[in-house]
Amino acid sequence: MPVSTQLPRLSQRAGGTTRSPVRDLLALTENPDIISFAGGLPAPELFDLEGLRRSFDAALAAPVGLQYSTSEGNPALREFIAERYTAQGLPTSRDEILVTTGSQQALSLLALALIDPGDTVLVERPSYLAALQAFTLAGARIVSVPMTAEGIDLDALGVLAEQHRPKLLYTVPTFQNPTGGSLGLATRSGLARLAAEHGFRIIEDEPYRELRYSGDPMPYLAARSNEHVITVGSFSKVLAPGLRLGWIRTRADLHSAVVVTKQAADLHTSTVDQAAAAHYLTGGGLESALDRIRSAYGERRDAMLAALPQTLPAGSTWTTPHGGMFVWATMPPGHDSTRHLAAAIEQSVAYVPGAPFYAERPDASTMRLSFTTYDPARIREGLRRLERSFVRT
Amino acid sequence: MPVSTQLPRLSQRAGGTTRSPVRDLLALTENPDIISFAGGLPAPELFDLEGLRRSFDAALAAPVGLQYSTSEGNPALREFIAERYTAQGLPTSRDEILVTTGSQQALSLLALALIDPGDTVLVERPSYLAALQAFTLAGARIVSVPMTAEGIDLDALGVLAEQHRPKLLYTVPTFQNPTGGSLGLATRSGLARLAAEHGFRIIEDEPYRELRYSGDPMPYLAARSNEHVITVGSFSKVLAPGLRLGWIRTRADLHSAVVVTKQAADLHTSTVDQAAAAHYLTGGGLESALDRIRSAYGERRDAMLAALPQTLPAGSTWTTPHGGMFVWATMPPGHDSTRHLAAAIEQSVAYVPGAPFYAERPDASTMRLSFTTYDPARIREGLRRLERSFVRT
Repeated sequence: MPVSTQLPRLSQRAGGTTRSPVRDLLALTENPDIISFAGGLPAPELFDLEGLRRSFDAALAAPVGLQYSTSEGNPALREFIAERYTAQGLPTSRDEILVTTGSQQALSLLALALIDPGDTVLVERPSYLAALQAFTLAGARIVSVPMTAEGIDLDALGVLAEQHRPKLLYTVPTFQNPTGGSLGLATRSGLARLAAEHGFRIIEDEPYRELRYSGDPMPYLAARSNEHVITVGSFSKVLAPGLRLGWIRTRADLHSAVVVTKQAADLHTSTVDQAAAAHYLTGGGLESALDRIRSAYGERRDAMLAALPQTLPAGSTWTTPHGGMFVWATMPPGHDSTRHLAAAIEQSVAYVPGAPFYAERPDASTMRLSFTTYDPARIREGLRRLERSFVRT
Repeated sequence: MPVSTQLPRLSQRAGGTTRSPVRDLLALTENPDIISFAGGLPAPELFDLEGLRRSFDAALAAPVGLQYSTSEGNPALREFIAERYTAQGLPTSRDEILVTTGSQQALSLLALALIDPGDTVLVERPSYLAALQAFTLAGARIVSVPMTAEGIDLDALGVLAEQHRPKLLYTVPTFQNPTGGSLGLATRSGLARLAAEHGFRIIEDEPYRELRYSGDPMPYLAARSNEHVITVGSFSKVLAPGLRLGWIRTRADLHSAVVVTKQAADLHTSTVDQAAAAHYLTGGGLESALDRIRSAYGERRDAMLAALPQTLPAGSTWTTPHGGMFVWATMPPGHDSTRHLAAAIEQSVAYVPGAPFYAERPDASTMRLSFTTYDPARIREGLRRLERSFVRT
C-alpha cells in the first residue's frame, strides 16, 4: 500500500477570502434578549407572507414551475425589471437584464467576468463587506477611494485612477452600506466623466434605492453613462431576502459573457422563486409592499436619529440617511468599537464594528447601526443599553 | 469633454468559457412537434406538484421562510442528507454538508476553492459539459483520461497523474452523463489508491445515483477514501431541478473554505426552497417519488434499448445503462453526428452530438440520447424518425 502523499492546498483565491465577521457576529446575537443593531436584515413582520404564498401557489400550478429554465431568467420578471428602470428614467429592454441568485451573485459573476488576478478594483472607503469578498475571490487588488460629504472624492479618484489603472470602480450610490450616505448629483456626473476619461467600468449596486424616506430621487449612474456603468439590483430589501433574487443590467456587449459565467456558476436561479416573484410583482404587489416598508423604516430611522445624541460618547458624529437601513457613527479618536463590543453585549445590545468595512487602514472608531428590525420603542431601549455600555466602560 | 478611452476587456477566464451548445440546442428544439432526446430534463409529469405545493405552504407559514439564512444551509435538510449517506454505508454528520444552488454551484465552488489558474484537472473521456465549464472558469487545464468498459482506465490514469501532477480528478461514477456508464468495483478501489499515491483529490458527482433500474448499488468513492474524495449530490433528478438544490459533502479540512467561497458566491441558497424541500423529505416524500420515477424511467430505458438496433446505422454500438437518463451511441467511422443533426431535425427528432462532451480530440461519431421525457410509444416514434433521417441522408 503506497504512503499517502500530502493533499493539495486550497487555491490562492480561497486562501485570500476570509469569512465575513458580520455573519459570524449575527450568529452570536441570535439570543432574543439581545437588541441587535448589527444585522442588515429586513423586518420580517413586514414580509407579505400571505401574498407571497398565493404567488407560490400560482407558480406551482403547473410542472413548468419546477423544471429547468433559462440562464437569463424568467421573461416576465425580466420584463418587469426593465419596465421599472424605463419608468425611472433609464430606458431598458428585457434583453439587458440577467436574473441572479441574489445581488451577491451579481457581484461575484461580474467579478469573475471582468477581473483577472492582479487587476485593480476601486471601492468606497468604507465599502460593502461582501462585495470585497467577491472581488477578492476573483483575485482583485482592492484600493479604496476617500469620501467627502457628497460621496466619492473626485479629485482623489482621478489621482488613483491615473496611478492604478483600475478595471472597475464599485459603488453603492444610494443609502450606502455601511454609511447610509448617497452620492450627490455632481458626484454622479463626475464619476461618469472619470470612467470615460480613464477607461474603467463602474458597478452601481442599488439594493436600497427604493427605500427612500425623505429627499428627492437621484438619477442612476447608468443614465449618465450607459456605456461604462453596470447596474445591480435586488428584491431582498423590498420583497424578501430568502428568495435570493437579484439582477444585473448590462449592455449587450457584456450581457452574453455574464450569461455564460452564470451558466458555469449555477445554470440558473430557482425557477419557482422567480415565477412566484413575477406573479407577485406583475400582480401589482410591489407598491403596497414599498409603502408599508418605507413608512415603518422611516419611523425607525427617526427614532434612532432622535436618540443618538444621548447615546454615544461626547464628540461622536453620525450620518443622517434619507433612506436605506443604516446609520454610521464615528466616535472621537481613541475609541475602538471592536474592543467596546464585549461591553455592549454585556448590556444586551449589539452593533457591527466598522473596521471590517475598510479594505485597508481601518478606522477603529466607527460602527454601523441598523434601524430596520425593531419598532421605535425597542430602538430607544436598545440605545439606552448602548449608552449604559459607555458609562460603564 | 474628454474622449472616451477603450473599455477594459473581459477577464481571461470569461474569454475562455464558452456557452453550452446543449443549452442552445435545447432552445432550438422547444417546438413541441420535435421529439427531443437532446435534453437532460426530468419528466415533468412525474413531479409531485401537489406534495411540493403543500411543502411550500408549510415553509411559508412563518416569516423565517423568507428571511436571510446561513451559508451552510437549512439544518433539517443537511441532517436528512447526512442520514441518507450514513444509511447507504457512508457515515456522515450534518457538519460535513453544505447546501448549494444546484450541483452546478457545487462544482463551481469546488473549482474556485481548489484550482489556481494553470492547475490540471483530470476528467473522464467524454465528461459532463457543464463541469468542464466550471473548471475552465477557474482557469484549469483540463486533461481527459481514456475509459474502458469498467470506467476510468487506471493504467492510463497512473501515467497521466505522473505526467501532469493534477490537483483534481472529476468523475460521475454512476450512470454518467453523457455515457450512462458506471465505474466498476475494482475501478473504484483503484481510483482511491491512485489518489492517495499521487496526492490528488477526487470529486465524485452523483446526481443520478438514486435512479437505478437494474443491477446492484455500488459503494461511494468516499467510502473508499474519505480523505481524498469530495462527494456532490443533487435533488434535481429526484425532486425537481427548478428548486436548484444540491450539496457538497466534505471533510472538516475543506468545509470552511468551501463555505467562505459560497458566501462570496451568493451568500446562501433560497431559504424557502430549502425549507420546502426539508419539509417534503423529512415528511417521507422521497421514497414514493423515487419509486414512481424509477418505474417510469426503467420502462423508457427498455423501450429505447429495444428500438435502437433498428434505428442506427449498421455497425453502431451503444451503452446499456443500469440507470440514469442517457444512452450513448457510437456510429461507425465516417459518421458525424453534428453534421447529421440537421437531417434529424428535418425528421422532427433531435439528440445531442457527442463532440462537445470531449475536452479534447472529440469523437464526431458519438451522440447522447436521453430516454426520460417521453413514454415508450413516443420514444419508439422518435427513434423511427431518427431511423428515417439516416435512410434519407
